[in-house]
Order: sequence, then structure tokens, then C-alpha cells
Amino acid sequence: MSAKLIKKPVNGMKDVLPSEMKIRSYCMNIIRENYKSFGFTEIETPCVESIENLCSKQGGENEKLIFKILKRGEKLHGAMEKCMKSFGEDTEGEMSERSFDESILSDSGLRYDLTLPLSRYYACHSNELPSPFKALQMGNVFRADRPQKGRFRQFMQCDIDILGEPSNLAEIELILATASTLKKLGFSDFRVRINDRRILKGAAIYSGFEEDRLDSVYITLDKMDKIGEEGVKEELLSDGFDETAVGKYANLFKELSVKENPIAYLKDELKDVLEADAFDNLSGIMEAVSAAGNEGFEMVFDPTLVRGMGYYTGTIFEVEMAGLGLSVAGGGRYDKMVGRFTGTDTPACGFSIGFERIITILLDQDFKIPGENEKVAFLLEKGLPSDKIAEAVARAQKLRNEGRQVLMVRMNKNKKFQKQQLEEDGYTDFVEFYCQELKR
Amino acid sequence: MSAKLIKKPVNGMKDVLPSEMKIRSYCMNIIRENYKSFGFTEIETPCVESIENLCSKQGGENEKLIFKILKRGEKLHGAMEKCMKSFGEDTEGEMSERSFDESILSDSGLRYDLTLPLSRYYACHSNELPSPFKALQMGNVFRADRPQKGRFRQFMQCDIDILGEPSNLAEIELILATASTLKKLGFSDFRVRINDRRILKGAAIYSGFEEDRLDSVYITLDKMDKIGEEGVKEELLSDGFDETAVGKYANLFKELSVKENPIAYLKDELKDVLEADAFDNLSGIMEAVSAAGNEGFEMVFDPTLVRGMGYYTGTIFEVEMAGLGLSVAGGGRYDKMVGRFTGTDTPACGFSIGFERIITILLDQDFKIPGENEKVAFLLEKGLPSDKIAEAVARAQKLRNEGRQVLMVRMNKNKKFQKQQLEEDGYTDFVEFYCQELKR
Repeated sequence: MSAKLIKKPVNGMKDVLPSEMKIRSYCMNIIRENYKSFGFTEIETPCVESIENLCSKQGGENEKLIFKILKRGEKLHGAMEKCMKSFGEDTEGEMSERSFDESILSDSGLRYDLTLPLSRYYACHSNELPSPFKALQMGNVFRADRPQKGRFRQFMQCDIDILGEPSNLAEIELILATASTLKKLGFSDFRVRINDRRILKGAAIYSGFEEDRLDSVYITLDKMDKIGEEGVKEELLSDGFDETAVGKYANLFKELSVKENPIAYLKDELKDVLEADAFDNLSGIMEAVSAAGNEGFEMVFDPTLVRGMGYYTGTIFEVEMAGLGLSVAGGGRYDKMVGRFTGTDTPACGFSIGFERIITILLDQDFKIPGENEKVAFLLEKGLPSDKIAEAVARAQKLRNEGRQVLMVRMNKNKKFQKQQLEEDGYTDFVEFYCQELKR
Repeated sequence: MSAKLIKKPVNGMKDVLPSEMKIRSYCMNIIRENYKSFGFTEIETPCVESIENLCSKQGGENEKLIFKILKRGEKLHGAMEKCMKSFGEDTEGEMSERSFDESILSDSGLRYDLTLPLSRYYACHSNELPSPFKALQMGNVFRADRPQKGRFRQFMQCDIDILGEPSNLAEIELILATASTLKKLGFSDFRVRINDRRILKGAAIYSGFEEDRLDSVYITLDKMDKIGEEGVKEELLSDGFDETAVGKYANLFKELSVKENPIAYLKDELKDVLEADAFDNLSGIMEAVSAAGNEGFEMVFDPTLVRGMGYYTGTIFEVEMAGLGLSVAGGGRYDKMVGRFTGTDTPACGFSIGFERIITILLDQDFKIPGENEKVAFLLEKGLPSDKIAEAVARAQKLRNEGRQVLMVRMNKNKKFQKQQLEEDGYTDFVEFYCQELKR
């Protein structure tokens, strides 16, 4: 007999059990239907992308986490020969502990997000797509992250994006669509934080930071909600930034936190380093969103919102669940990515729901799917002759045609226990079929 | 400026455009809802499986087509060192064109079907699952096949399986569920062919073929519908099989093709090599399926049905579209696979719909989704002030709450062309918003 195979899923990935799958499927339907009502159309791209695209510096830190796919056949052999050769030349046959050029072994990899594939898709098919193009994607992405509780190496993302729309109509629609979807999923108390990459930059330049070290400033600013103004100040100073700049920066955020209209205040303060446009854009978004009715959530300008990915060029936003302090959705404008494929920049803006987080919250809350149908189980005694089986089958089919869910199973010896288990599974009606018509 | 990225999807995989995605999504819903009415519960496994499982000889020819994933970090470096070392030892530093042991470079790969992962899933979670367990899976599988028209390296499979049910109740439910799903998708003229691996073997042994060359006999028999009885006979002879055996075999199928009740005939003919059970099993399935009402399809015993995969142990079946001569679904019993994981065999039987074929047929037939909602487009003139945008947004939101699908877009210069395009996309109502209330 051959060796036993491996029962567990691969390291860091998970099997979805029926009880969770039911909720996932329900949520996917809600998300799909609601986004459709906003005119988003669903598309799909392969899980696999070419390695050149995946390693193009669009993905920031995620590029370190790519699952790379081995070349096949002759190409793999060619690559291996090359590895060997370079090895032989470098060390004249001796072994060493140096690292090898593994990059030539792979021609493709698993996607780490849905934004890069969407940009490629749009660049490839724009002739066949309406303009602006409103895309909905629900798909798995893969990151070879260190496995940890609640974080998996394969996970679902639900993204909406609008390509080809330069005005803030894109942001307005994305925020409204995402907020109303979250409400339909039963969430009634969340906060949409919004900021703009240009404002982030403006505030730093205004304070006197040098342009080539801004990323480091943002990383510290991003911790504001955890370490507070004093903490930010200390960290910036210990990173060696100029004291005057740090002081001016900290002061600006202190002022902002007490202003009634922080957008108007910043617009005025930064007028020498940033055009009014970035601020009017934000105000317009907030005005339109509240006009559509934002019961259940609030929308706030948060000048400390940073968001990680390198590709954002303008507005950025994030949804935070009240009480949980968790971000469940995020997005922003990335006007430069399509241009990496076509040579011509295309306005683009997207919002991504952290589907796995939503599911985790719902499972923690012991979520029940509203209005599930009544389910019937047919129990067939062992040895039931084929004409009686046929009769049972015909009855089940009739009920199914009437919209009922009918399970046909053989009766176990311990019928009572079997029925208990089926009841736990949501079966409310039972019909029993016996070889002899003795009892019912 | 950095190099342009690659616009096309990776070789052999495809982007799904909105028009196709709409149909895919519609079909997936029908399939999911109908299978649910039979008591199947949806599950999901990762796209990635460990390489040991993928290369365990369960997948037959498909194992040659695995996309392998490169090890990462230290493990990859260790593997490379090992490659180098073995290379160094083998050739004393000289280059050669021999192939290298690439297998140690990979620890996992993309799944080539959904049956192997399901068996692993069941082996891993059977304590948490009902018995019998009726699983529905809809997911992508990957095969590094030579790219050709209509065949892709990533494609969707829709599988139902029943694990833990030894009786033919499993086959009956699988066939009824699949046939009724195909009918709900609009197909009304198809044939379910059924056979049993044990009968295939019995007929060959009865004719006098040696047991160790049966696979080669089956490969030829499988061509019956293309090359006919004479063709099969010739090929077997040219393969060097014994003339008497070939004659007896050909004669058996000739007799079968004219018998009114071929099952009864075979049951009698093969009584010395095969127990009656395999035949009663088939008759029982056919009786029950026709009792449930099989308008729209016919069910036939086809003693020449083979099916490729090595893992089948009993009943096998296939659905063929009339007129197209295409197989659109297939499956069978594989009672030995779960045992490869647990050491204890578990009855298992499955039916897989060839989702991509179904979609291709529907696209070729210019399929229209029944009862799509009316769609409204709001056209906003460029430069519309933010209070008017807010007003439009509020109106759109109200319509969406009433269940309408509303698209908000900026008005193009060529409004007439824009509206034409939207009409092609299914938009029937238009509302226009202008900066000044001049015209409507």
C-alpha cells in the first residue's frame, strides 16, 4: 500500500466548512446585488499574473510575499542550466552559502491583490469597455505571509473600481456603494475616514520636512491613533528630523484636532504649498455623501490617515467599525497605474472590502441568515427495494419543484441521533420510508 | 520612466469580460440554488495543495500538467544548494544537458481538479461533517495544458459529491441533481450515459484479455463512437492482442448493440466472471431516475463508456448534448481515494459539470438572461456644482433603495453616442443634470 497523503490544507490556507460557507455565500450575494444597483459590472481575471507585473514595485511590501510559479519543461531546464553555469563560473566548482538567482526559475505567480490585475485588464480591453468603466471583482488573492490567527495566505477580496472618471463623482459613488453594502450586511455603526495624499504631502512640506524622506514621516503619522501627538513628535525627533519642522507639524495637527472646520482651516494654512482643488474635492465628496443620507455611518476628514500601498495619488479612505476599532474596507485614487501598462495615465479609483474581516465579525456575532427555507429530510430504510426508492425519489422531486429543499439519506441504525443531527442542520420535516409498511 | 508592463493575461489564461461574466454569474446561481434543493452544502478548499498530494498518482495524465509553486526563503536556498551539490558530484564540475531534480524546488502547486482536494477535506474534517456528506464545490482548477481554442489553463469546475453513502442512492441523487440543473440552465435534449468499471473489466476478462493490459483495451474501446466496431477490432489486433479474445470481445458488443435489454443480456453472459450486483445496481439507478421524471433527457446504459481518470472504482457516467456530440458533465464512484488519506476506505461518488463548456454553448447560442431589471443612467454635465451633484446622488440613492439599478456618469461631449452605448448596455431610462436649468 502506498504512503498516506496529507490531510491538512497547505500551511497558512484554510478549508471552508459548510456553516461558514453559507454565510460567505450569503454575503457575496448581498455585495454583488448591491454593487450592481450602482451600475458596477462584475469581471474576473486569472489568479495567475506574469512575474514581471507582480514584481513591478506597484505592490509595495506585498511584493515580498508573492507565491512564484515554477517554469515548466524546456524553459525550466534552460533556467536551471543557467543557474548551474553562473554558479560554476562564480565559484570555480566550489560550494558556498551564497544565494542563487532564483528569479529566473519563475515566469508567473499568484496575484497579491485585485488592483494590479484590474489595471492590466483595463489596459488590455479598454476598447471593449464603456468609459467610465465601473468594475466589480470578487476573488481570491494570495500572500505568503507568516501564518497567524485570522490571517490566511489565500483570502477573498471584494473590490469596486471606477476607471476613466477624473472627477470626484468616482469617490462619491464608491463611498456610497460601499457604505450601503455594509449597511445591507447588517452593520449600522461605522466611520468613513477620508484624506488626500496631496494634503498629506502638503502638510509635511509646509512644516519643512524634506521631500525625499516623506515616507518615513507618514509611517510615524500613521501611528497617531495609537501613540498620540506626543508620541508622534518623539518618534520623529528620534528619527533625526529637524526640531523646527517636527514642532510645526505637531502644532498643525493639534490645531486641526480642535477646529470646527478642519478642511477650511488647512485649505487656508497650506495655501502656499497646495492648491485649493484638493480641499474642494474633499468637501464636495462629503457634501454629496451626506445628501444621499448617511444614517448608520459618519464620514470624517482625518488628516492623519495614510494607508500603506505606494500607488495612491489622491483621495484615500478607510472604513472603521465602531467599537471594534478595525478597518474593514479601504481604498483611494491611483491615477498612475494604468499608465504603467499603456504609457498614458488613466484616472482610477477603488474601494476594497476586507471580506475575511467581515466574515470573522459575523461569525463572532453568531450571525443567522434571515429567512432560510424550511428543509425536509427523507429517511430510507436500508435494503429498500428499487421500486420504493423510485417512489421516494419521485416524491422528493415533486417537493423540490415546489421550491422545497429535500435531502434523501439512508436511515441509520440510531435513527433518533440521526434526526437530532439533521435538526441541528436545519431540517424540520422528516419522511420515513420502510421496506414493509409496518409503521410510519 | 520605468518599463511598460505586460497587458495580456498570462499564456493560456483568460480575462472575463462583463458580457460573459453576467452569464457566468447567472449560471452559477442557478447551479448553486438547484443543488441546494437536493441538500448539497457548499464548501471551499484552497487553490493550492501540497505537492505530495498533487503528485500521488490520483490524477492520471493531469499530474503532468501541474503548476508548481516555488519554495520560499531558506527552504528554497536549501533546495538550490542541494541541486548544485548533486550537480557538482555527478559531473565533477562539467556542464551537461541532463535534466535536474526540479521536484525539490517546489512544496505545493495549483489544484488540477476538485476531487482530490475534496477527499483531503473530508479526511481532515469528517468529525465536523454529517454522514453522508453532500458537498457542492464551484472553483477554479489549473492545468498547464498546451493552449488551444476554447481550452484554458485556469477554468471553473462545478462538482457535487456524496461521501459516506455506499448504496446507489448516491448515484441516483447525483444524476437527478445534475440533470435537473442542466434543464434549469435551458438544456432540453441530452443523454446520460452510464456504465460501471466492474462491467468494463468483466467484459474484457470474459473475452480472454489479460488483466495487466486492460487499460490499453479500454483506450481502444473508448473510440467505439468514432471508429466503430470494425475499427476497434483492427486497433486491438494491431496492438498485438490475441485474435480469439478480440473476436469474442467484438462479438459481445455487436450482440449488445441489438439487444432490447442489454443489461439483462450482459448479466447473464458475464455471470461466471462478475456478480449480479453490478448489474442490479445499474438497473436500480435507471429505474429510480425515470420514476422522478426524465423529460428532456434520456438515460442509457453504454457498455463502451470508459472515462479517463484512473481513480474510478464502480459506476461511471457522462452527459452528452444532443446534436453537439459534446460531453458537458461526467463523474462516477471513487471508493478508494479517501482511504489514501485516512487508511480506511470511504464510499464516494461525484458528478462534475463542465462549466466552461456550458458557458461556451450559451455564448454561441447568444443566450439572454431572462427578466433583467430596467436600468437608469444619470448623466451629469461637466462642472456641475457640488450641491447639484449632491441632489443627483440623493435621487439615485432613492431609486436604488426601490430596487432600480442606477448608473451615475458624467455627460460626454457627444451625448448622443454616449446614450447609444448605454442603450446597448441595457440602459433604458436617462435623467440629465445641467449646471443651469436651461433645458431638459
